[in-house]
Amino acid sequence: MEKETKYPLLETIDSPADLRKLSEKQLPQVCKELRNFIIDSLANNPGHFASSLGSVELTVALHYVFATPEDKIVWDVGHQAYGHKILTGRRDRFHTNRKFGGIKPFPSPDESEYDSFVAGHASNSISAALGLAVSAALEKRNEHVIAVIGDGSMSGGLAYEGLNNLSNMPNNLLVILNDNNMSIDKSVGGMSQLLISMHSSKAYNKVRYGIAKGLKKVGILNERRANALIRFNNGLKAMLFRQQNFFEGMCARYFGPINGHDVLELVRMLRSIKDMTGPRMLHIHTTKGKGWEPAEKNATLWHQPGIFDIETGERIVTEGGSPRFQDVFGETLVELAKANEHVVGITPAMPTGCSMNKLAEVFPDRFFDVGIAEGHAVTFSAGLAKGGSLPFCNVYSSFMQRGYDNLIHDVALQRLDFVLCLDRAGIVGEDGPTHHGAYDLAYLRPIPNLTISSPYDECELRRLMYTAAQPGAGAFVIRYPRGKGSLVDWRCPLEAVEVGKGRCIKKGTDVAFLTIGPIGKVMEAAVAEAEKQGVSVAHYDMRFLKPIDTAILREVGENFKYVVTLEDGTVKGGLGSAVLEYMAASGYTPKVEIMGIPDEFIEHGAPSELYRVCRMDKEDVVRAILKFKDL
Amino acid sequence: MEKETKYPLLETIDSPADLRKLSEKQLPQVCKELRNFIIDSLANNPGHFASSLGSVELTVALHYVFATPEDKIVWDVGHQAYGHKILTGRRDRFHTNRKFGGIKPFPSPDESEYDSFVAGHASNSISAALGLAVSAALEKRNEHVIAVIGDGSMSGGLAYEGLNNLSNMPNNLLVILNDNNMSIDKSVGGMSQLLISMHSSKAYNKVRYGIAKGLKKVGILNERRANALIRFNNGLKAMLFRQQNFFEGMCARYFGPINGHDVLELVRMLRSIKDMTGPRMLHIHTTKGKGWEPAEKNATLWHQPGIFDIETGERIVTEGGSPRFQDVFGETLVELAKANEHVVGITPAMPTGCSMNKLAEVFPDRFFDVGIAEGHAVTFSAGLAKGGSLPFCNVYSSFMQRGYDNLIHDVALQRLDFVLCLDRAGIVGEDGPTHHGAYDLAYLRPIPNLTISSPYDECELRRLMYTAAQPGAGAFVIRYPRGKGSLVDWRCPLEAVEVGKGRCIKKGTDVAFLTIGPIGKVMEAAVAEAEKQGVSVAHYDMRFLKPIDTAILREVGENFKYVVTLEDGTVKGGLGSAVLEYMAASGYTPKVEIMGIPDEFIEHGAPSELYRVCRMDKEDVVRAILKFKDL
Repeated sequence: MEKETKYPLLETIDSPADLRKLSEKQLPQVCKELRNFIIDSLANNPGHFASSLGSVELTVALHYVFATPEDKIVWDVGHQAYGHKILTGRRDRFHTNRKFGGIKPFPSPDESEYDSFVAGHASNSISAALGLAVSAALEKRNEHVIAVIGDGSMSGGLAYEGLNNLSNMPNNLLVILNDNNMSIDKSVGGMSQLLISMHSSKAYNKVRYGIAKGLKKVGILNERRANALIRFNNGLKAMLFRQQNFFEGMCARYFGPINGHDVLELVRMLRSIKDMTGPRMLHIHTTKGKGWEPAEKNATLWHQPGIFDIETGERIVTEGGSPRFQDVFGETLVELAKANEHVVGITPAMPTGCSMNKLAEVFPDRFFDVGIAEGHAVTFSAGLAKGGSLPFCNVYSSFMQRGYDNLIHDVALQRLDFVLCLDRAGIVGEDGPTHHGAYDLAYLRPIPNLTISSPYDECELRRLMYTAAQPGAGAFVIRYPRGKGSLVDWRCPLEAVEVGKGRCIKKGTDVAFLTIGPIGKVMEAAVAEAEKQGVSVAHYDMRFLKPIDTAILREVGENFKYVVTLEDGTVKGGLGSAVLEYMAASGYTPKVEIMGIPDEFIEHGAPSELYRVCRMDKEDVVRAILKFKDL
Repeated sequence: MEKETKYPLLETIDSPADLRKLSEKQLPQVCKELRNFIIDSLANNPGHFASSLGSVELTVALHYVFATPEDKIVWDVGHQAYGHKILTGRRDRFHTNRKFGGIKPFPSPDESEYDSFVAGHASNSISAALGLAVSAALEKRNEHVIAVIGDGSMSGGLAYEGLNNLSNMPNNLLVILNDNNMSIDKSVGGMSQLLISMHSSKAYNKVRYGIAKGLKKVGILNERRANALIRFNNGLKAMLFRQQNFFEGMCARYFGPINGHDVLELVRMLRSIKDMTGPRMLHIHTTKGKGWEPAEKNATLWHQPGIFDIETGERIVTEGGSPRFQDVFGETLVELAKANEHVVGITPAMPTGCSMNKLAEVFPDRFFDVGIAEGHAVTFSAGLAKGGSLPFCNVYSSFMQRGYDNLIHDVALQRLDFVLCLDRAGIVGEDGPTHHGAYDLAYLRPIPNLTISSPYDECELRRLMYTAAQPGAGAFVIRYPRGKGSLVDWRCPLEAVEVGKGRCIKKGTDVAFLTIGPIGKVMEAAVAEAEKQGVSVAHYDMRFLKPIDTAILREVGENFKYVVTLEDGTVKGGLGSAVLEYMAASGYTPKVEIMGIPDEFIEHGAPSELYRVCRMDKEDVVRAILKFKDL
């Protein structure tokens, strides 16, 4: 006798092959169970919620119609891929999602053959899938490749570069535009307008497509001729209307928009266009958070809601303690904007995440959400700076890798007054390898005309923001981590600090301990512990990586034989390297121990666990300091 | 009595204000003289040729109609801006263009108030100009901002991100699309198709615009009502044709296309649309190389032709000596492709510059020019690699800054077999600050799962390419400079080298001299010179920055008290830092002198001069080695 289950169909699906054994009629039930499974799981194990609810039917239809994993689905950002994970053999492990040692937060080829490509940073799917499709042709494999991209990701230049290359090489790529008019926050820009305007052509597309489908159904047309007819109609349409739509202009055939929550319609449509040749775009409409009413109403809040009560639908928020660095950033930016009318704020699609929404509320005209477009965010800010505004551009550290050239070419070379706040710097935890802000200190340090800083605590964040806003401060980077700081009472007065000056946190005689950023504050406990064990530690908060405080370094070089450096960033090229370079150039020869994120580090999980993996938690720091005894 | 001159009008123009004193009827003559001046200058002082000839009329019209420098022109890549330089007070210094101490190769705000924004890397103009336009509104300055972008630059995602943001903030930006259907090589992709398809709507636009203009001319409409009519017609058109064109979809009003070589028509058009509000796009057609027949026929060759004979129109090419690294790359890639059917080549718009055109000739189906789109080039290559092809992606070092995230996120994290050849690494010379490949070693080194190498000479380039092509070699970077190598006979057999192994070039006992790349070969002369002066030098070619050869470093750490490192890259974070990190971690304490491109280095000029400025030419290296005597 079977025991009763909430998921009678879902539990029979251990791989998409099982799904494909079901009849079409059963698919709506599969969708229902899959949606409930996601809701049940995420109520207890927090993760990305609303996007995956929106793509349930699409996920089921794709795995039903296509022969995955031989056919390849490339998801654009993994937020929408939980259903995909659950259908592809990871249902039983789904409760370990985002946990240390558990399944990965985003599609990852390391984890499953069904994950065709890495999907952490937005907008890469079309380029990656085009590569897969072209290589399939070159390698003479007869397989389908499908990119699934949200409308939010369409604001990224990389998506456009991919689209722009659809036409000039042979490929049968199918791009599915999952259009919910919502990225993490609201989609912005002309592309979203363009998508809305396409609805007006819905009737035409339906008629055109319907004719071919109808003719085929009644046996008048075979697939090849149906395709030819559709292609002809495309040409006809272009002639009639003189202008092609954007996607047709890119030489991709455009289908839709259709209802992305009608799984049977999706299956029919996918079957019809599946074997057509050449690049194609299917435009579907979905609702972010579909099936969970609170999320449908406020998808931004429910993008990554944390745990929630499955009965009441209430998010379970544990507040209290010290505020997040993000709150301090947001509040302080408003204070600065009130005091200086030139201050403006720019974010690439993360107003809520970085708390720039606070500025948006008070000064909507001085707030710019440019969509997922980090390169533009930086260059646009550079233009604002050149025109006399004082931009505070806030970008997540790992996403800033997309704006690297813009920072060098458009900002630093022009010596602009420009403030770049790098949020989510260092180990980010559960979001994992694609999201760690591990490299920023290293990749920023060689850039000319750049000040690079990181605050010890929330008050220092305020002081650095105030310092960066001083006229002539130049291009000024402030990096800080995700989440809570250390101070409950953080509303210290806004005062400037001296650029390039660190400070001595604690005097000592045996070991010099040089830190940058909030990890220094955390490690005060390690210093205390080491002192208990008989080593006298001088602790310096360097505050600036560049210009680095050479007075402190000289003092250390002259008085210490042993130095430990610690940064929440890669051990290659950051603070440790800067200290070594100074010592080498100045003829000092202390032994220097560099602590930070190790090379090749690509784990995910809670930050506390990751610091342990990285051998840079409290125990490790104590151990490193105590090495002094063996010298 | 005035002396006879070839440029009677041009010589009266010391600033755009002088130009604006002339009558409209004189403008064709100004254009003629300006064009001849450019041809005469570049015949003797080489530079970017064809682009600037194509934009002569536009340049004259812009400075005639707009009140520069209060009104701001943002040029997208400075190739097209020679006319602009000549009209804005730099005519007399134009013969120093690109020379050490002379005027800069691209627009540079450091040099002139008429240069509104830096313009070295493509596709940044719309974002930058949008920033200028928005800040003008915020700061309540009543000024015009114009971005001039070539169709080639339109393939860059940054341009799209800029366009996509035109509509969601108040601005009066005018974007001029200078469409010559040609970037440096040929424009590729859907966007160029889209631009061609727009010609079909020419008649409509002309009619629409003509009606409003005509009505205004005869006094029936004032400017405001004419604008309203045009706007209405836009709406009408969108309704009639159901689909807007791409630019109108982006909520910019679209005008054109018009003939970009009719200066009077340009002036009339610019006057008409100058004071309209909201973002606008003017599409003009031009011919690259216009007015110089050989260039009109082969604009790629004449993009940057070197010197030429003004009478015969023949380029003066001085061949001979050792071949360029580019030739060796191109030939070797073909050899590898012949031996391995999986090998494919990818270039972002530089097939001729990097010599991948050799592959294109032999294997056109395995060659992909993706347009100016470095991010896509890398991610598309990653997709190809994931699909079983072996991509050789060739990107100029400085442009690779645009693909930094793609390399980390899409390549390295997935441990793909992928070869990235970084051309134009190190000091590039005349192209200057925006183009120096100064940062690559530093920004690449922290990336996980990445092999980073640089060849000592042409044979080593071949060996490294062969090594990188071995199955399982992973993500493999090979960086090499622009121009000639050292070997005339470079066709050595293709053999693999051991990954992570350098080699001893010369044994010695006093100083260890560690180099990476061809600069090591060049400095053999410095080693010989230092030995003559009584210092015994052990010279190691490290070959790999990562994994670095720890056997060599151990040998050096054990046997030498003094080490000199030399790299054609920034002194912060590259080879020197890697050596210091190893020595610190291993407990060796040699004195290490790091030589390389200094921080804040932003000069242009001949490489030989720049190495002197950087204090890393032969004399400096000899001096550094001889410091051993003072220890």
